[in-house]
Amino acid sequence: VTIGLDVIARAAEHLPTFTAASAAFVIADGAVAGRWFPPLAESLGQAGLDAVLLTAPAGERAKTLQVFEAMVHQLATQQAHRHDPVLALGGGAVGDLAGFVASTYMRGVPFVQVPTTLTAQVDAAIGGKTAVNLPEGKNLVGTFHQPRAVLADIGALDTLPEREFISGLAEVAKYAVALVPELLEILEHDPAQTLARDMATLEELVARCVGAKARIVAVDERDTDRRLVLNYGHTLGHALERLDRFEGRSHGEAVAVGMMFAVRLSHHLGLCSEDLVARSARLLKSLALPTHTALPSATDVLAAMRMDKKYRDGMRFVLLEAVGRAAVVEEVPESAVRSVLEEMGAT
Amino acid sequence: VTIGLDVIARAAEHLPTFTAASAAFVIADGAVAGRWFPPLAESLGQAGLDAVLLTAPAGERAKTLQVFEAMVHQLATQQAHRHDPVLALGGGAVGDLAGFVASTYMRGVPFVQVPTTLTAQVDAAIGGKTAVNLPEGKNLVGTFHQPRAVLADIGALDTLPEREFISGLAEVAKYAVALVPELLEILEHDPAQTLARDMATLEELVARCVGAKARIVAVDERDTDRRLVLNYGHTLGHALERLDRFEGRSHGEAVAVGMMFAVRLSHHLGLCSEDLVARSARLLKSLALPTHTALPSATDVLAAMRMDKKYRDGMRFVLLEAVGRAAVVEEVPESAVRSVLEEMGAT
Repeated sequence: VTIGLDVIARAAEHLPTFTAASAAFVIADGAVAGRWFPPLAESLGQAGLDAVLLTAPAGERAKTLQVFEAMVHQLATQQAHRHDPVLALGGGAVGDLAGFVASTYMRGVPFVQVPTTLTAQVDAAIGGKTAVNLPEGKNLVGTFHQPRAVLADIGALDTLPEREFISGLAEVAKYAVALVPELLEILEHDPAQTLARDMATLEELVARCVGAKARIVAVDERDTDRRLVLNYGHTLGHALERLDRFEGRSHGEAVAVGMMFAVRLSHHLGLCSEDLVARSARLLKSLALPTHTALPSATDVLAAMRMDKKYRDGMRFVLLEAVGRAAVVEEVPESAVRSVLEEMGAT
Repeated sequence: VTIGLDVIARAAEHLPTFTAASAAFVIADGAVAGRWFPPLAESLGQAGLDAVLLTAPAGERAKTLQVFEAMVHQLATQQAHRHDPVLALGGGAVGDLAGFVASTYMRGVPFVQVPTTLTAQVDAAIGGKTAVNLPEGKNLVGTFHQPRAVLADIGALDTLPEREFISGLAEVAKYAVALVPELLEILEHDPAQTLARDMATLEELVARCVGAKARIVAVDERDTDRRLVLNYGHTLGHALERLDRFEGRSHGEAVAVGMMFAVRLSHHLGLCSEDLVARSARLLKSLALPTHTALPSATDVLAAMRMDKKYRDGMRFVLLEAVGRAAVVEEVPESAVRSVLEEMGAT
């Protein structure tokens, strides 16, 4: 993982050698490609790789089996060979799609992540998960396929739309609260630096998040056990996105509310102090993230949670005992979940 | 791998325990399902698994992204969970499709192969390759995903159509010539027993092929190096199937001709004796397999070979030095390939 400024324009210096490769296939949406494909292609050219752009729809619309099919057709018609790398240039959605393409075209070709959003840099691009969505749910089809390299260009964060940048801060806040106490201190010390996108601050935030995720994924590439803590705030978050049909709240907004739900549920079950609930809320507010939102009925939320692929038998949640101490709790009583949802405004 | 009679009806005895599974999703074509799903479902029921049949088209028509999509939709709408196994019941095509489904649905669920054709029992079901075809070529999209168990019911071979059974013998002949000299002796000793589908003979043939493949795959799950020898006869075989658009020769017929091409090319290059060419031809004839066929032009065949995903730079072939001694030879001169094709009737 390379994190820094100008990483895209100097990609050739940071990439491993792809033996026997002649072309590099870059999957990106039109807007991202317009800004970042030219410098990336130029640098790839210096490494002897002919960069070919494959354009995908923006955002979650990239993550369909139809787009996947269009991508593998294009690779086949352009006679991409098994040694040619596929690069994901963009946010988490393009990374998930391109990773799935790279892991299945010819049963796997080399893959490189070039994340340009904060969410992708701190979370999605690390860990080897790839996926597309089905109408029945998010990420229901995918693989594990580790990238050969991740190039996180902090400069790309400067051009992100405000809402997308803030959405990424929700994942940073997740690491801070659930996994990395020092990160929480940095965020609390001067949230204005973060919101102003000070490049040095962002580089440190990204590096700490990536470090935390890489340590967890190294222990357990698959979803079981330890990796589940990365899901802090995501059980309700995913359920809300599902109920919105992925067209309402941003991922970060859903996760922020999900984190408030998780810490309140932790307190409700006597696992953590009231103070941690308040501290979570202060953090999210200081990062311009929501702490509550209009909620559907508790019954609908519970049904959507049961559709989660991490769901198993009873209700399972990632809960908090203290800052940096997240734990997976099995068989949380449905009545407790319902109470907290109702406290938060669900009917 | 369990090989024997009545293995399907006693599946529950041979399967591992699938912790937390409640259903088993069986992918099969209509004809195979009609004959073998009822006993399989009954046995799965004894193991506490509710068997659900997902019907796929017969043969290669199962191996499309459209059928793949239909399968994952059905799993999602039936709320298949990540602990529920997917079973492939049928030939190699259904195994490739179902394996791809199992390896990607929820990023991988347990997979079991229940091969009912000779080709699938001796080759396709072993080794963890999964795939679907694209219009541009065979097996261009897929994964590596090892089955948790392979149940090869020799009794299923008794009901195979003659052409399909003979097609499977081509793969058996491949192992015999390229990898397992004792197998060649068994086949040469009494081909009539094999053609008459004597159950004990078939059980021995299947066991020896599976053993040979398992030893190779254990060394190298991916395609590189040693596993390539399993491709003996397949470079021309695949090219012919591609030129037929998979609607002409059976896979076995194409591979048989491909084996004759490979041994002739080996002889042409001075790697093996004339006698080995004659012995290969005798073996194939004794198993009711073709040794030659109408060939397209050498130029078309060469172009189709270059589409192979195992193709790299120069022409690479699996050639024979002696019985059981196959070797990967790089940079075979195109002129040699052309000569042998023309000897065999290509224009």
